[in-house]
Amino acid sequence: MYRTHTCGELRTGDAGKEVTLCGWIQTSRDLGGMTFIDLRDRYGITQLVFNMETNPGLCEQARKLGREFVIQVTGNVRERSNKNLRIPTGEIEIEAARFVVLNPSELPPFTIEEDTDGGDELRMKYRYLDLRRPSVRDNMILRHRMAREVRNYMDSAGFIEIETPFLIKSTPEGARDFIVPSRLQPGSFYALPQSPQTLKQLLMVSGFDRYFQIVRCFRDEDLRADRQPEFTQIDCEMSFVTRDDILDTFEGLVRHLFKSVKGIEFSEPFIRLTYDEAMESYGTDKPDLRFGMEIRDLTGIVKGRGFSLFDNSGYIGAISVPGCSGFSRKQLDELTGFVTRQQSGAKGMVWLKYEADGTLRSSVDKFYSAEDLMLWVEKLQSGRGDLVLVLFGDREKILPALSGLRLEMGNRLNLRKRDEYKPLWVVDFPLFEWNEEETRFYAMHHPFTSPRPGDIQLMETDPGAVRADAYDLVINGIETGGGSVRIHDASLQKLMFKTLGFTEKEAAEQFGFIMNAFRYGAPPHGGIAFGFDRLVALFGGQDSIRDFIAFPKNNSGRDVMLDTPAPVSEKQLQELMLKPSGRKQGQE
Amino acid sequence: MYRTHTCGELRTGDAGKEVTLCGWIQTSRDLGGMTFIDLRDRYGITQLVFNMETNPGLCEQARKLGREFVIQVTGNVRERSNKNLRIPTGEIEIEAARFVVLNPSELPPFTIEEDTDGGDELRMKYRYLDLRRPSVRDNMILRHRMAREVRNYMDSAGFIEIETPFLIKSTPEGARDFIVPSRLQPGSFYALPQSPQTLKQLLMVSGFDRYFQIVRCFRDEDLRADRQPEFTQIDCEMSFVTRDDILDTFEGLVRHLFKSVKGIEFSEPFIRLTYDEAMESYGTDKPDLRFGMEIRDLTGIVKGRGFSLFDNSGYIGAISVPGCSGFSRKQLDELTGFVTRQQSGAKGMVWLKYEADGTLRSSVDKFYSAEDLMLWVEKLQSGRGDLVLVLFGDREKILPALSGLRLEMGNRLNLRKRDEYKPLWVVDFPLFEWNEEETRFYAMHHPFTSPRPGDIQLMETDPGAVRADAYDLVINGIETGGGSVRIHDASLQKLMFKTLGFTEKEAAEQFGFIMNAFRYGAPPHGGIAFGFDRLVALFGGQDSIRDFIAFPKNNSGRDVMLDTPAPVSEKQLQELMLKPSGRKQGQE
Repeated sequence: MYRTHTCGELRTGDAGKEVTLCGWIQTSRDLGGMTFIDLRDRYGITQLVFNMETNPGLCEQARKLGREFVIQVTGNVRERSNKNLRIPTGEIEIEAARFVVLNPSELPPFTIEEDTDGGDELRMKYRYLDLRRPSVRDNMILRHRMAREVRNYMDSAGFIEIETPFLIKSTPEGARDFIVPSRLQPGSFYALPQSPQTLKQLLMVSGFDRYFQIVRCFRDEDLRADRQPEFTQIDCEMSFVTRDDILDTFEGLVRHLFKSVKGIEFSEPFIRLTYDEAMESYGTDKPDLRFGMEIRDLTGIVKGRGFSLFDNSGYIGAISVPGCSGFSRKQLDELTGFVTRQQSGAKGMVWLKYEADGTLRSSVDKFYSAEDLMLWVEKLQSGRGDLVLVLFGDREKILPALSGLRLEMGNRLNLRKRDEYKPLWVVDFPLFEWNEEETRFYAMHHPFTSPRPGDIQLMETDPGAVRADAYDLVINGIETGGGSVRIHDASLQKLMFKTLGFTEKEAAEQFGFIMNAFRYGAPPHGGIAFGFDRLVALFGGQDSIRDFIAFPKNNSGRDVMLDTPAPVSEKQLQELMLKPSGRKQGQE
Repeated sequence: MYRTHTCGELRTGDAGKEVTLCGWIQTSRDLGGMTFIDLRDRYGITQLVFNMETNPGLCEQARKLGREFVIQVTGNVRERSNKNLRIPTGEIEIEAARFVVLNPSELPPFTIEEDTDGGDELRMKYRYLDLRRPSVRDNMILRHRMAREVRNYMDSAGFIEIETPFLIKSTPEGARDFIVPSRLQPGSFYALPQSPQTLKQLLMVSGFDRYFQIVRCFRDEDLRADRQPEFTQIDCEMSFVTRDDILDTFEGLVRHLFKSVKGIEFSEPFIRLTYDEAMESYGTDKPDLRFGMEIRDLTGIVKGRGFSLFDNSGYIGAISVPGCSGFSRKQLDELTGFVTRQQSGAKGMVWLKYEADGTLRSSVDKFYSAEDLMLWVEKLQSGRGDLVLVLFGDREKILPALSGLRLEMGNRLNLRKRDEYKPLWVVDFPLFEWNEEETRFYAMHHPFTSPRPGDIQLMETDPGAVRADAYDLVINGIETGGGSVRIHDASLQKLMFKTLGFTEKEAAEQFGFIMNAFRYGAPPHGGIAFGFDRLVALFGGQDSIRDFIAFPKNNSGRDVMLDTPAPVSEKQLQELMLKPSGRKQGQE
């Protein structure tokens, strides 16, 4: 071993010991008679002291050490006179007796500090240096701990982690696959999995009644901000269970993670909202429950007063913003601008101030009396001092607009605290969504999602009304997991394909493989998958997943550190019998 | 929940309880008055009884249940009169009161039993049914347990599991990469990692001084038997450590696995043989130490007696096979045939029988007196009753031939027991191997492997003699892990490239990326990777890794269950701006 201790473990109790440490030079301060060096490793920082009086040769050598040099140093631990109580090792220092430069370092392209001077691209290009920064390092350690706790919980609940293949088959439905040309069978391709969905269902057919896997998945999407072409999910499936068994099991997982990793215990069961309830009260299927400000439907009480914008709207909804009745005209105009900029279909905003003295003032005083307005306030359960914001138009456009407005006001009022967590289940999603262009229904989740048992009789008469046995776990407005009970009954599966407009032949072509497996005794089963990158970022209190991935790609899907994707050799393409077809042909 | 218990947990203590079980029908036996059904799930088998006298309706229904039907059954536990002591649930049975068919099953294409009637291809095609067989199921559970124990050990030793990317960059050196076309950057490609080698070294540069990962790797090789295009390795790297620190740490891992998974404790430290010692005594760098029969060099004592085959050979070596002096002429001829069939360069075999009565008889009595032959016997430490087998020729060809002969005799004498494990480290591999065709040295491991500290001065004068700080873990003749201390010193790295015949420009082009990272303070580091599939198979007592992988590919790299690789749609290729070039162009 090159060292006796790490840079994070020495305390005053170690005073007097001779120790050897290894690490990187964080900073060096030359105070004339003394030179202080902060030595950093994964575990912390320890101060080294070089004394010009007692050991001038060594001290002069130490002064030549640059930032990020790697050294091995031996010396005696002693209590510091000038203690730094912000770090665990701040009460001691090492009086250096000798050191060895294990490796020098060029000047790094940015400072390895919390508030680094490196921009995003630079930090990504030198990701191996960025990973030295304590916050990024801690994110990786958090990720490791969370993966460990996931496995602890799942293992103790009888789940078996089974590795599924990465070189699988491309499926025409769904998002775009990454494909991998086969050299042994030129013209044929593997595909990288978007998720192990069918494979985990096959494992249920195999009888592995509790499966999980922390697994990389791939999706060749046009990248949006904070999406990665490769991402990690906690993939789970169970047999012989009902929906509530599944929710209970994975609520247990989430509780275990919060408790073991963050020390947070939830006293109550997670709230379960139906999709309809979530849409009605929050305008979204991913509600942030850290604050109230719920949406209320004013449609029934505001029409017929001659205000044509309301009278011509299918839906009028509002939120009540606490303590904001004092908003100025300018602030209200700015909010109206925010709403219309959202491009949500909201054409304007009506406001109502419930003043502290009880008076009611609105932008539509002309049409509504104080008694009328009092009905709004009652509906919204507003208090004095609140500001009511009303949007109007088509329900399916106005609800998301109200959701956006609600979140915006939550941000402005600082109601969305990073260290508060409000998980909930959203259940009973619609089974189908109507595609206007293709005038057919699509499966909202996937075609193996089971309808709610009570809704099966609606499959043929009113597909749009059928609810799915599907569920999402939402935390603080972020969808962190989702899944469903699967169809295991052949006749129901047939009905499902019929409703989706598949002929039996088409169904067999696209899904014959798994339907074939289901002919040999498929158990009732269902599952869930959690977005692990997102979950870790949430636990880390950050919005972006990128700093919770060791070597992420940028928004164009590039790894700027590895400089990939990149051209490959002509020989490789020849072996694969592939030719770039050039832009023109590609766009034909 | 569909069930109160599993099919593996009921015992006589549960007699009298009403229980509900779910599972698959393993077998059904209609004995007239009674029908017995074995119900199977992941946890075991429980016998169900249907009584024609007490419940004729139910019993008749039960008789219609076919193999692999999935049912839910409720009934009372009772002690069996006719106990089956071979299974843990064999002392009880369930007197069925009612059941539900959760799913029927068609007749499976092969029987779901230990001795199945399904051939390899059929079992692979219906892998989801093959996985129902208890032995294959148990292999998956073993794999899960081993992965868990790897993580337990590594975590408690302070290692952090860090996920490295799968979409990386193709490197020209080494084995063939699988590549992944980029749609966003047509004509450019990602590559799937053959191992996270450079990435884990970057993590050391980042300061994560103890990294591991159980990770999928990919290699587009012309497949040999029992190789998979995707395979899993336990990938590890450490900083601030010497070779012995690394060996001690991972010997600890292997000991932990043997103890926790198989209950085996090794009392002694693992033997460490140098590469030279292993070659000399076993003719291979992967010796099977479950039995002796070591190779001895007779070159010095057999020459000069007029036997030209020996006199004209550079090397004469032998093994002494215990208790086989009674081999017939036919048996010896057959062994000679085995040796020459190996195509190893051994042109023939000389034998010597040390009879039980002490007499010595050999195939070369004409040339060697009893005193001469006694020297052989002494050299080999043969006992009476042993058979000495001698091969001769070029040392580098004869040693492997002797190794093959030794293993063959070990097999014949049943000395290679499945339940015995003999791990050892092989160390001090040559750093370089000479490539005769290209008349240059190649790195035996990879160009970042460090020479043994004492051998650095030979780098320029005698590269072939330089030993590497590289090591393999060998268990029962199987290489289960390998690694090395890496070069972290820039000038040594330069010398390495020079020895390999790289110009500075070539080195920068091919390895500039990691060499660049090393300029910013690389710590001394080294690591190891274990073949996880192989390790699990070894623990499972089997030679083939295929049944320790849930969904393996066949020897042509095909997944016959998923039927992949397969053609993809024209649209996909257009989006990637790729064209199959056809066989002709591909071979230009």
